[in-house]
Amino acid sequence: MTDEPAGFAARLREAIASRGRLCVGIDPHPPLLAAWGLTDDAVGAARFGLVCAAAFASEVGFVKPQVAFFEQYGAAGMEALEEVIAACRSAGAVVIADAKRGDIGSTMAGYARAWLGDGPFRADAVTLSPYLGYGSLEPAVTAAREAGRGVFVLARTSNPEGATVQEAQGERGRSVAQGVVDAARADNADGRATVGLVVGATARHGLDLSGLRGPVLAPGLGAQGATPADLARIFPDPALVIPSTSRQVLRVGPTVRTLRDAALRTRDEVEAALD
Amino acid sequence: MTDEPAGFAARLREAIASRGRLCVGIDPHPPLLAAWGLTDDAVGAARFGLVCAAAFASEVGFVKPQVAFFEQYGAAGMEALEEVIAACRSAGAVVIADAKRGDIGSTMAGYARAWLGDGPFRADAVTLSPYLGYGSLEPAVTAAREAGRGVFVLARTSNPEGATVQEAQGERGRSVAQGVVDAARADNADGRATVGLVVGATARHGLDLSGLRGPVLAPGLGAQGATPADLARIFPDPALVIPSTSRQVLRVGPTVRTLRDAALRTRDEVEAALD
Repeated sequence: MTDEPAGFAARLREAIASRGRLCVGIDPHPPLLAAWGLTDDAVGAARFGLVCAAAFASEVGFVKPQVAFFEQYGAAGMEALEEVIAACRSAGAVVIADAKRGDIGSTMAGYARAWLGDGPFRADAVTLSPYLGYGSLEPAVTAAREAGRGVFVLARTSNPEGATVQEAQGERGRSVAQGVVDAARADNADGRATVGLVVGATARHGLDLSGLRGPVLAPGLGAQGATPADLARIFPDPALVIPSTSRQVLRVGPTVRTLRDAALRTRDEVEAALD
Repeated sequence: MTDEPAGFAARLREAIASRGRLCVGIDPHPPLLAAWGLTDDAVGAARFGLVCAAAFASEVGFVKPQVAFFEQYGAAGMEALEEVIAACRSAGAVVIADAKRGDIGSTMAGYARAWLGDGPFRADAVTLSPYLGYGSLEPAVTAAREAGRGVFVLARTSNPEGATVQEAQGERGRSVAQGVVDAARADNADGRATVGLVVGATARHGLDLSGLRGPVLAPGLGAQGATPADLARIFPDPALVIPSTSRQVLRVGPTVRTLRDAALRTRDEVEAALD
């Protein structure tokens, strides 16, 4: 036993202290592949991801490969994703696989094994979608807790259609999104910070995040609208806020040095605004 | 122009008329792999899926490979899934990739390209999860419509945790699940039946499905509890109900003839109860 925070909490705190809280997305979106002079296929996606790994996975605390942009090329794309995840982990970044998976029972356990097990997609954390109820994600929460890794559950997203589900009124007059927050808080009572949330940095989220004791991944920094200064307003307690940006950094590629400079500049802006 | 129903509607009607409405899941769940004498890896999953294809994909109208059970083995598992999907399509079944994907914008378009494009995961339909709002799924609905294929959007599932989200009260006093149904109905106004729903066969779903003009995939037949006779009660208008079973058929494997017999027996029970 030790007084140090255990599990994913330790990993998060160490990454934030040594590298800062910025998360940079790895999105081999076809127009970006074209802009980088890469082919719209698994070879191009692998190259794109490996350039990202070389540019900033040894610099920033967090990287977030977007699974859809690899999956679009079939199994070959998923093999590219394996390479990219491994390269980013080797470079020391916390890798959040942005997969938004969600299912029930043994099927959910299959997804947990895929992303939180020790197989080829092994990441430090995975994003999950709770349409089947937060409770349905339990196999992944348990797998993450046991492995000292994390999950990030969608709570409140910034896209306009999100409110139709996330702001619906659920049990005890709470919104669906607040229900997710409250369930995550309960799962984090052990201090391991296993359950993070995804809360869009551009939404007036209206959530009570107090006492969450877990990280908040906040996409929307940069191209989608929020500035580093906005973050402090959107998240009054920034202890474990992980702002995520993609296109604002990626658009300056494909030169490694240019990408690294953009990532470091954004990281420093975030640190100045939140610390 | 023709009077025939176009798009996915034509494919659905033809499959149901010639082969019946049963959907059989292809779930290489580790305990089933063990029971079939197969290895807990991508080789085992490929073998499992190809046995299923040989046994019943030329007999029943619909098959539903569960993506999680392939994804758990990484890219090699996804390559197995490519083989299984191709084998099932060659055998003439309508292939519903049970992926429960859901994201926004260009990311959602990536998933649509993966499952509804002409790449190696090409299926006839894919299941989608609407936590980000039904409207966020639009790139997939459009892709399916243009290709004459379909999507099945989660509406009301039978797991106990599902109600916390799906029965929350959304806009105009409707439940979240009913909001999904109503949006699907609007998208199906063109008669192409592009948007199906997933509604658990074991839930008292409480939904008004009238005028949907699209298919309802109803997991829960067999091992999860509903009998063919229950289906007629749960879905008073069975025109496009596609009951899905997995373990009830799969547990009799791995002999092709035994699997086929179990699939045909279940198919005939369903037809007798619903027609």
